[in-house]
Amino acid sequence: MTRYPGQYADAGVFVCFEGGEGGGKSTQSRLLRDRLAERGYCVRLTHEPGDTPVGKDLRRIVLSPETGALADKTEFLLYAADKAEHVETLVRPALARGEVVVTDRYVDSTLAYQGAGRALDAGELEEISRWATGDLRPHLTVVLDLEPEEGLGRFEGRDRIEGEGLAFHQRVRQSFLDLAQSDPDHYLVLDARAAIEDIAAQIARRVEPLLARARRSVP
Amino acid sequence: MTRYPGQYADAGVFVCFEGGEGGGKSTQSRLLRDRLAERGYCVRLTHEPGDTPVGKDLRRIVLSPETGALADKTEFLLYAADKAEHVETLVRPALARGEVVVTDRYVDSTLAYQGAGRALDAGELEEISRWATGDLRPHLTVVLDLEPEEGLGRFEGRDRIEGEGLAFHQRVRQSFLDLAQSDPDHYLVLDARAAIEDIAAQIARRVEPLLARARRSVP
Repeated sequence: MTRYPGQYADAGVFVCFEGGEGGGKSTQSRLLRDRLAERGYCVRLTHEPGDTPVGKDLRRIVLSPETGALADKTEFLLYAADKAEHVETLVRPALARGEVVVTDRYVDSTLAYQGAGRALDAGELEEISRWATGDLRPHLTVVLDLEPEEGLGRFEGRDRIEGEGLAFHQRVRQSFLDLAQSDPDHYLVLDARAAIEDIAAQIARRVEPLLARARRSVP
Repeated sequence: MTRYPGQYADAGVFVCFEGGEGGGKSTQSRLLRDRLAERGYCVRLTHEPGDTPVGKDLRRIVLSPETGALADKTEFLLYAADKAEHVETLVRPALARGEVVVTDRYVDSTLAYQGAGRALDAGELEEISRWATGDLRPHLTVVLDLEPEEGLGRFEGRDRIEGEGLAFHQRVRQSFLDLAQSDPDHYLVLDARAAIEDIAAQIARRVEPLLARARRSVP
C-alpha cells in the first residue's frame, strides 16, 4: 500500500475536535463556529460518523444497540467508508471554497477506538484510514482530554461503543494523547475540566493564525 | 500493509461463483447445492453482498438507486465491510464445521467491479480486500463467462451497478478472465451460453476431488 504523506489543504482551514466521551467536543465546536461566523468567516460544522446521507445510515448501523456484535474488521471498515464519503463529498469541497471546516471526530477517533480498543493491527488500520481520506489532515486537532471515569459520568445514555468497559476507554484516551504528542505543531491538548469560556479562548488563540487562508463572506 | 499469503481452509470446501450479470451464477450455485445435498453433504449457499444482518443493510445502501452517487472509495469500503462480516461470521464457521460453502460472488467481484471499472488503484483494492477477509480464498472459483451485451440483455431490471455502460462491463469481464488465468489450479472458466445441465456437470466433476474434506450428515 502506498504510504501517503500527510496532506494539508492549501485553501480553507480544517479543525478537528477529538477526545473521549463527555469532554465537550460538540459544545466547543459550536462555540468556535459561532465566534468565527460572527467575524464573517464561512464555517461548516460537521461530524463523524454520519454527516453525509450514506454516513447517516452507517452511523445508525454502527452505533445502534440493535446491530449487536459486529466483527472488528466490519466495524472498522464501516467507519472508513463513512470517512471516505465525508472527505470526498463534504470536507474537501468546503475547504476548496475557502471555508473553515470544524469536525467533531475524524481519523484519530478511528485509530483510538478501533486501534487502541480492539484486537486489530494499529498500523494496518492507520494505512486503510489514510487511504480512505487520501490522508487529508486537519491543520489543527484539539484534544479535549478527560479521565474516562469523569467523561462517562456526564451523561446517562449509552450506545454500543460507550457501553465498553473502563479499561477500553483508558486505552482510547492514551491513544489520543500519543497522537498529539507525536505531532505537536498540529495538536492542542486541553484539560476538559477547565471553564468552557477558558477552553474556547485557548482554542481561538490557536486557530487565529490559521485564518489567513480562510474566506470571509461579504461583511 | 502485511502481504497475506493466500489462505485455503483445511476443513470444508469453499466454492465461489463469479462472472458478470446474467451468466447463471445463482442457477448453477443452487444446482450444485442440490446435487451435493442429495449425497448427504452439508451445504451452505450464500452470497455477497448481503448474506449477514449488517450485509443486508449494506447491500441495500450500495445497490439502491435511491442512494445516488457514492464516492468510489466509499462504495469499495462498504463492499469490504460486507466481506469482513461475511467471512468472519458465516464462511469461516461453516468451513470449520466441515460444510461446503457455495458463495455467489466474493473478492474477485470487488476486484473486477471496483478495480477494473473505477478509477481506484487495483493493487490497493486488492490489499484492503485481502485484509478484510484475512485472505481466505476459495478452493475453486467458477467463472461463468459471457459477453456483457448478452448478459445484460437477459433481464429487465437495472440496479445502480447494472446501469453502468457497456465498456465498464467489458472491463469487468476481462478482469475475471485475468484473475482466472493467473491461478488455473483454483479456477474453472465456463462458457455461460452452454446448456445448464452441461455446465452443472462440468462444475460437479471439478468439485468432486475437493469433497474429501467435507462432512456428510448422517445418511
